[in-house]
Amino acid sequence: MNAGFGLEAARRVLAAQPFSRLLGAELAACGEGRAELVLGLRETFLQQHGFVHGGVLSYLADNALTFAGGSLWGDGLTAQYTLHYLRPARGERLVARAEVIHAGRRRALCRCQIVARDGEVQTPVVFAIGTIVNPGAS
Amino acid sequence: MNAGFGLEAARRVLAAQPFSRLLGAELAACGEGRAELVLGLRETFLQQHGFVHGGVLSYLADNALTFAGGSLWGDGLTAQYTLHYLRPARGERLVARAEVIHAGRRRALCRCQIVARDGEVQTPVVFAIGTIVNPGAS
Amino acid sequence: MNAGFGLEAARRVLAAQPFSRLLGAELAACGEGRAELVLGLRETFLQQHGFVHGGVLSYLADNALTFAGGSLWGDGLTAQYTLHYLRPARGERLVARAEVIHAGRRRALCRCQIVARDGEVQTPVVFAIGTIVNPGAS
Amino acid sequence: MNAGFGLEAARRVLAAQPFSRLLGAELAACGEGRAELVLGLRETFLQQHGFVHGGVLSYLADNALTFAGGSLWGDGLTAQYTLHYLRPARGERLVARAEVIHAGRRRALCRCQIVARDGEVQTPVVFAIGTIVNPGAS
Repeated sequence: MNAGFGLEAARRVLAAQPFSRLLGAELAACGEGRAELVLGLRETFLQQHGFVHGGVLSYLADNALTFAGGSLWGDGLTAQYTLHYLRPARGERLVARAEVIHAGRRRALCRCQIVARDGEVQTPVVFAIGTIVNPGAS
Repeated sequence: MNAGFGLEAARRVLAAQPFSRLLGAELAACGEGRAELVLGLRETFLQQHGFVHGGVLSYLADNALTFAGGSLWGDGLTAQYTLHYLRPARGERLVARAEVIHAGRRRALCRCQIVARDGEVQTPVVFAIGTIVNPGAS
Repeated sequence: MNAGFGLEAARRVLAAQPFSRLLGAELAACGEGRAELVLGLRETFLQQHGFVHGGVLSYLADNALTFAGGSLWGDGLTAQYTLHYLRPARGERLVARAEVIHAGRRRALCRCQIVARDGEVQTPVVFAIGTIVNPGAS
Repeated sequence: MNAGFGLEAARRVLAAQPFSRLLGAELAACGEGRAELVLGLRETFLQQHGFVHGGVLSYLADNALTFAGGSLWGDGLTAQYTLHYLRPARGERLVARAEVIHAGRRRALCRCQIVARDGEVQTPVVFAIGTIVNPGAS
């Protein structure tokens, strides 16, 4: 059995992901089946209408789901997920909060909500659920 | 009612997406309910184990689904999608092929497969389906 | 624009569904974006290992999602949903609670949890999310 | 390792499912990652508008996915699935064809299409994908 990991270990994993460094995502919290991943928004993250590109939101949801599930076991792989866009996203930053809904020994179902922060306004922009697999279970 | 668009119009849309320019994605084909989106792989697209980050694969699937559905109407918004990772992805480039499975006036269901090309080897790495909405239907 | 419906109107819709009568589902609550659908379990609802058949759980989730979303508008059609089985289900009855997560004019994203009641024990057995469409929006 | 099963073994499993007997589903084919499940339509399978109830279509998709995936290993459990309704379903019978898209040792991703047969007319009414787990992998 693996021990789970907490915020410091999770931040080392995130720092070891070149794509997360490219985007500049930061973990505000991670542990015991929860994760909060924050992304400051830049011009380069937009699509053709001036909103955040779906690929940026997808990256954030996918990664937050993986850290939430992986925090149970010390490591995690996302097997699949379903993502719903609620509204166009804009603002200064995105905050993705994910948590485990149900966990077995090998798989956890997690959910994630992404909120866009624009000044004082917080707008939910994505809801996602996904299956995270424990790579250490045999 | 919008007329659909073809490869040249789709490439203009892609070029107007700052996030797609950041990653360097290119449309090899687009029109009549199909799209092929190609991404040359770079070190910055990886995760901590040396494989392509799930966020990169998600970007590619989301965008290919949108272009396939949007090609029917001249514009498209992805409302939701479900993505399954089949294997870890590595190689020189990713090729995402998406096509419409079923289309109504307002919504289209599309599917997408991503293949990783590593020299002569082609490996399916992602399968996804998603709902694309026609923003011009009223 | 349709007005939403409440419990009595929803029960009339349920009573007008031959398949719901065949299974014997009952609405314990419905209105304002929420629905609670209850099903007493019978031998005929099982699969080969003595647990509730996935098709029974799917029926219940699908219908609860539709009533939750439909309660906003007076009618609703399920466009798509994603369902996760959490554990094998057994007991005296199933209780499906669904609620709207996000609603626009034409579509609502709803979630549903099904709990199996076996004596005093309540076990979550299904988590689902789905898109409900307003058939009256034009 | 389990050996897969073929049509005769699959029919014994189906016959051992009380809920499948209640509905009267029949396996027309099963083996090597494929399954075809057929359901003759009755008045009791409808919803309030005279079309087939979504719960009946969901049962059929769920079960066809399970048999397709399970045919690889001799047994299978559906972990999760995503289902899209394409059109209202009516006619004499429903035919659900499912097949494995990708299989590992422990999990298979399968897809399913349901066609409604109304006289000479065949109409696709459902598209679904789902994850089938091998209960014998340890």
